[in-house]
Amino acid sequence: MNKKELFEIIKKKKSFLCIGLDTDINKIPNHLLKLDDPIFEFNKQIIDATHDLAVAYKPNIAFYESLGPKGWESLQKTVDHIRSTTNEVLIIADAKRGDIGNTSAMYAKTFFETFDFDAVTLAPYMGLDTVSPFLEYEGKWSIVLALTSNKSAADFQYLTDKEKNEALYETVLKTGQIWGNTDQIMFVVGATKAEALTAVRKIAPDSFLLVPGVGAQGGSLEEVAKYGMNDHCGLLVNSSRGIIYASKDEGFAEESRKSTLELQQEMETYLKNSGLL
Amino acid sequence: MNKKELFEIIKKKKSFLCIGLDTDINKIPNHLLKLDDPIFEFNKQIIDATHDLAVAYKPNIAFYESLGPKGWESLQKTVDHIRSTTNEVLIIADAKRGDIGNTSAMYAKTFFETFDFDAVTLAPYMGLDTVSPFLEYEGKWSIVLALTSNKSAADFQYLTDKEKNEALYETVLKTGQIWGNTDQIMFVVGATKAEALTAVRKIAPDSFLLVPGVGAQGGSLEEVAKYGMNDHCGLLVNSSRGIIYASKDEGFAEESRKSTLELQQEMETYLKNSGLL
Repeated sequence: MNKKELFEIIKKKKSFLCIGLDTDINKIPNHLLKLDDPIFEFNKQIIDATHDLAVAYKPNIAFYESLGPKGWESLQKTVDHIRSTTNEVLIIADAKRGDIGNTSAMYAKTFFETFDFDAVTLAPYMGLDTVSPFLEYEGKWSIVLALTSNKSAADFQYLTDKEKNEALYETVLKTGQIWGNTDQIMFVVGATKAEALTAVRKIAPDSFLLVPGVGAQGGSLEEVAKYGMNDHCGLLVNSSRGIIYASKDEGFAEESRKSTLELQQEMETYLKNSGLL
Repeated sequence: MNKKELFEIIKKKKSFLCIGLDTDINKIPNHLLKLDDPIFEFNKQIIDATHDLAVAYKPNIAFYESLGPKGWESLQKTVDHIRSTTNEVLIIADAKRGDIGNTSAMYAKTFFETFDFDAVTLAPYMGLDTVSPFLEYEGKWSIVLALTSNKSAADFQYLTDKEKNEALYETVLKTGQIWGNTDQIMFVVGATKAEALTAVRKIAPDSFLLVPGVGAQGGSLEEVAKYGMNDHCGLLVNSSRGIIYASKDEGFAEESRKSTLELQQEMETYLKNSGLL
């Protein structure tokens, strides 16, 4: 899926919502626990209830990995279920992998061949060598960590190179755009504040940004839309816990749909205000 | 295992060798492919043939992940086999994970609970929040990426902060030592050149360093020992392909032992020259 196709789906669904499948066996409804694969069954019901409102799903790989081989089976079934349900979503592996050479090629194989993901989040520390094996897959995306919103993001991301006179996260944004075009590279941008988003957009005006941290993590969707949206939307805004854990009852999927619908409707307003609908 | 215990094992085995289990289904001997779990069978024979000469094993997680759920089963059996064979090795997950909050906690759970690893390699981009869940496990190690030897390491690792007047990798080495003590934190240092190793040792004199890239990747073990060794050795030097793919015949494990023995004997010389034996 390229940038243009993604924008078409955003316009059709009137949404730039990414649903994070951070599925935790300790947080899903109790009645699912007696089933063979509670994790997959939970995801399936969430997907079935929300796929017309979301433009992306983002399984958080750590949650599946922590369950050992069985977790990877649940992940496999989840990705396959999304794929068989609709072609109109981007499936993102939130894996934050970052290695080099034949190891990085193995990670690319994992997510683009063994699993049928459209995109993978990647860590930039080792530079282009991490990303290049992923770029060889046509129609697939590398989503490079640039600016994150956690407290210790300041440990390294704001260090300012004395020659370039720019912060590390700014260098990552600039360098990432040299590595690949805006059909291949997105950036993770945890900024939900006006100032930071404006700074990011100045450097990367045309790139899609994956923005975590709206909803349970407290970011403002209005600010993100106001300062982050470009002429093809350019935003995928993620919500995980606020949607998938809306209820622990048997009707949890309907409650998730309600939470999803609220976000979608708010997004529709911002898309209209920006003249994109 | 703490630093002192690791040094005892190094002295006992006269070795600071880490064997990288980058086990590739396309590179292992053909006669194993008819077995139920060729990856595990290969690892088992390598481990059985080398465990008295190596102080650490380092499964490269990408290689297991790329095989889907079955790969994670092979990994599980490999770790369990090492654990049941000997207590005198460090088992390192070369995973280069890097996330925050409950996601990072899930990764820590994966490698320290679901699997019985002693150590995990971690990416520093998001700062302390990545590492802190791993530090909560007593006797376990976080091995933080500091300086790597790949070409594009220069994309970011050498950027020099204008206030600190030090390169990013130097800031990582300094900051990592604040995060935890030298029983908790090691660093990945891909340097095999005198100058770079001297610079690293100036900043991190007491830390263990995991050094990849000796052997097939061309680094000089002699230089590493000369400029990297401290009063408790402080080095784990990895070799993967040079050992595990020494032969594709039925006697591959014996050939691996021969390659391992050569490295061990060279290491014994350097340990003696440094007065540690």
